[in-house]
Amino acid sequence: MNAQLLSIGNELTLGQTVDTNAAWLAQRLAAVGVLCTRHVTVADERAEITREILEAAKTADLLLVTGGLGPTPDDLTRETLADAMGVELVFHPECMTQIEAYFASRKRAMHPQNRQQAMCPRGATPLDNPHGTAPGVRGRLGNCDVYLMPGVPREMKPMFETHVLPNLSHGSGAAIVQRTIKTFGMPEAEVGEKIADLMARGRNPTVGTSAADLIISIRINAHGETVEKAVQLAEADARVVRERLGVAVFGEEGDSVQDAVARLLIEQGKTISTAESCTGGLISKRLTDVSGSSAYLVQAFVTYANSAKERLLEIPPALIAQHGAVSAPVAEAMAANCRRISGTDYALSATGVAGPTGGTREKPVGLVFVGLATAEKSVVKELRFGENLSRDEIRDRTAKAALNLLRLELIGRSS
Amino acid sequence: MNAQLLSIGNELTLGQTVDTNAAWLAQRLAAVGVLCTRHVTVADERAEITREILEAAKTADLLLVTGGLGPTPDDLTRETLADAMGVELVFHPECMTQIEAYFASRKRAMHPQNRQQAMCPRGATPLDNPHGTAPGVRGRLGNCDVYLMPGVPREMKPMFETHVLPNLSHGSGAAIVQRTIKTFGMPEAEVGEKIADLMARGRNPTVGTSAADLIISIRINAHGETVEKAVQLAEADARVVRERLGVAVFGEEGDSVQDAVARLLIEQGKTISTAESCTGGLISKRLTDVSGSSAYLVQAFVTYANSAKERLLEIPPALIAQHGAVSAPVAEAMAANCRRISGTDYALSATGVAGPTGGTREKPVGLVFVGLATAEKSVVKELRFGENLSRDEIRDRTAKAALNLLRLELIGRSS
Repeated sequence: MNAQLLSIGNELTLGQTVDTNAAWLAQRLAAVGVLCTRHVTVADERAEITREILEAAKTADLLLVTGGLGPTPDDLTRETLADAMGVELVFHPECMTQIEAYFASRKRAMHPQNRQQAMCPRGATPLDNPHGTAPGVRGRLGNCDVYLMPGVPREMKPMFETHVLPNLSHGSGAAIVQRTIKTFGMPEAEVGEKIADLMARGRNPTVGTSAADLIISIRINAHGETVEKAVQLAEADARVVRERLGVAVFGEEGDSVQDAVARLLIEQGKTISTAESCTGGLISKRLTDVSGSSAYLVQAFVTYANSAKERLLEIPPALIAQHGAVSAPVAEAMAANCRRISGTDYALSATGVAGPTGGTREKPVGLVFVGLATAEKSVVKELRFGENLSRDEIRDRTAKAALNLLRLELIGRSS
Repeated sequence: MNAQLLSIGNELTLGQTVDTNAAWLAQRLAAVGVLCTRHVTVADERAEITREILEAAKTADLLLVTGGLGPTPDDLTRETLADAMGVELVFHPECMTQIEAYFASRKRAMHPQNRQQAMCPRGATPLDNPHGTAPGVRGRLGNCDVYLMPGVPREMKPMFETHVLPNLSHGSGAAIVQRTIKTFGMPEAEVGEKIADLMARGRNPTVGTSAADLIISIRINAHGETVEKAVQLAEADARVVRERLGVAVFGEEGDSVQDAVARLLIEQGKTISTAESCTGGLISKRLTDVSGSSAYLVQAFVTYANSAKERLLEIPPALIAQHGAVSAPVAEAMAANCRRISGTDYALSATGVAGPTGGTREKPVGLVFVGLATAEKSVVKELRFGENLSRDEIRDRTAKAALNLLRLELIGRSS
C-alpha cells in the first residue's frame, strides 16, 4: 500500500509553521506496515491544491490531506476535493449540530463563519471531530482513498485513529517493522563504521543513521511475510547494534535521554534535585517531562543571579570571586550543596555561557560546566560547544549532557 | 522566481524526524522575495531522489535539496545529482583537505568513510562547510539552479547564508513583504470575524490566520513593485489588525510570549522570580530563553514535592491539607511567598495536574492554577484544559497562560 501526504497552508509553504503532522502520520502508518513514500506541501491556493490532490491520487492508494478545514476564508480544502471529484459541496445538518454542540459544551457562542465547516463534497462522507469545530472528510478518487483532516494536531490525531486507521488495508500482507536505537556521546562516523556491514545496500533489514542535536539514531526497517518474521529480523539487527555501540545506547524509538534517566531513577528508587544557572530550568523541566516524575524529582533551583547561588545554594561568595560563576569549582559546589540541601540521592548542576552575549576571551560563549553529586563524590564535566551554536542549541546540549552524566552514573559506568 | 524544496531521508518519510529545515528555508527565501511554492520529501532511494530532482527542475528556477550528504552508506544525494546531470562523481582534493582540517581542529581522528564527502558531480561546484564534514554542492539542470546542502540545521543554515542567498536573482523585481501579528487569548473564529474584510480573496495584501497551541497568527503578505511599496501595504494592514485585536496582540514575526514579557520587564526595569510545580521549570526556562535575561530573572523554584513547597516557599502544611496542592489558595501563596522570599517585583506560580496520570474526579487532568504576585496584589487564574491534551500541551499552555498574565500586568491591562 502506497501512502502519500499532502499538507496545506501558506503558513507551511512560507515556513511560518513547522509541519509536525507529516512526521506523526508517517510514523503511525509505518507502524501498521503502510509506507509513506512522499510528502508534498502546498499553499492555500485552490487550483494548486486541486492539482496536487489529482496528481497524488494517480499513484497513491491512500492520500492523507491535512489543513485548510478551518472557519476562515482562506480554508479551501473542502472546495478543492469537490473540484477534484467534479462535484459540488452539500450542507450536512448533522455536522452543523455537532459544531453547535461543541460550542455549547464550552459555553461559547458559535460564529456564523463556522457554518462553512458543515459543507462536504457530494458523495464524500463527513468524519466527526469531537476535539474541534472542523469535521473531516472521506472521499474517493479512482483507486485512491482520500481523507481530509484538520491541520491542528490535537484534532487531527484522534480523527486519524478513529476514522483512518481502522479502514487501512494492509496491502500485500507483507509486514514492515521499524526499530530505532538511540545513542548519545559517540560521533556519527564512528557509529557508521561500527555497523557499516549492517548498512550495506540491499540488505533486509535496511539500517541507516541520522543525527539530530547530538543524538545519533540507528533506524532498522525489516520487511517480512508476516509481522512475526519482520520482528525477528529487526530484533536480530537491534541486538547487534546494541552490542557494538555499548553504553552510548540510551534507548529506543521515541525515547529521550530523560526517559532513560526516569526509568533508571524509578527502578532504583533514587531521588534527584537540580541547581541550574544557564539552562534556566530546562534540566528540571526535562526531568518532569515524564508522568510520575514526582517519584524522583524533589525540588529544583534556578540560581540565575550570583546572589541566588549564594542565598539558595550556600555557594561562598569567595568561590565565585576567585573562579567566576562559570567554573568547575562553582558547578561542583552547586551540585554538592543542592544535594545536601535537598536531601536527595543525586543532584545535577549546570553553569555556563549560553550566549549569544556575555562571552569573554577566557569564558567564551559555549563554555559550560555540568556537575553531578552523589553521596560519595562530585564530578564536573567541562563542555565547549563553540560559538557557532545558538543559545537554544547550547542549552539543549547542556541539558542532554547533564542528564547523560546521571544516566552513566545510574548504570554504573560514570568515568 | 519559483523555488522548490526537496528534503531527503528515510527518517523524514518514516516520520522519525520532523523536518524543520523546510520551514526555515522558506522563511529565509520569502524574506528576500522568493516564494517557495512546493516542498517535497522523499526517502534515501537513489532512483526516487533522482526522479524528484529532475521533476522539480522542470518547473523551478531554484531547487534547494537538504540531507543525504553524510559519511554513511545511506547518504546518496551526491550520486543522485550526478545521475540527474548525467555525469560522474569526481574527487576534490581541496574538499578532502577541509574535511581533514575540520577533524584536526577538534582533535578527532578522521574516519576513512568521510572520504566520500569529498566527491562532487563533474561540472558542479563544491561549497565549503566550516561547521561540519559535508561540503555542499551547486549544480545546474536546464534553467534550474540546484543546491545540495547538509540536513543538519546548524551546518545547512550558514551554508545557505554564505553560498545560496548571495546568488539569488530576485526575479521580476516585484517585492514580497511578509508581516505576522501574533495573538494570545482570542478564539480563532473571533479573530477571523474581526478581520474578515482583510481576508477577502484577491486583495493585496493577502491576509490569513493560523492557530498553533493557543497562539493565533495573522499573516500579511503584500506584493509591490518595490520593497518600499510592499512594506507600506503590509504596514497599513498590520495597523488595522493591531487596532482591531487590541491587547490580544503580543508580538510579531518570531516573537513568543516570553519575548514580549522580556521586553516589557527590561523596559520597566522590573525583576521576576517563579515558583513552579506541574510545569517543572518550563516557565523559568522560557523566561531565560532570551539572552540578557539575567537583567530580570533573579531565581526560580521548582517545588515539585509538597515538602519542597513547605520548605522552600513556606507554604503552610495546613493550607495544602485543606485545599490540596492543586488549588487557588496554594497557587496564590506560592506566588506571594516566592515574591517575598526572592525580593523581586513580580512572581509567577503554577500548580496543576499535567497528567496523563494523577487526575481525580474533583481535580481532573488539565486543571491548573497560575498565580501572579505584585507588591499590591496576588491574582490566580484557573485553567481547565480538558483531558484531551497531552502532558506536553498542558504544560506548554500553562506556561503561556502564566507568562500572558504577567504580560497583561506589565501593560496595565490585567483584570
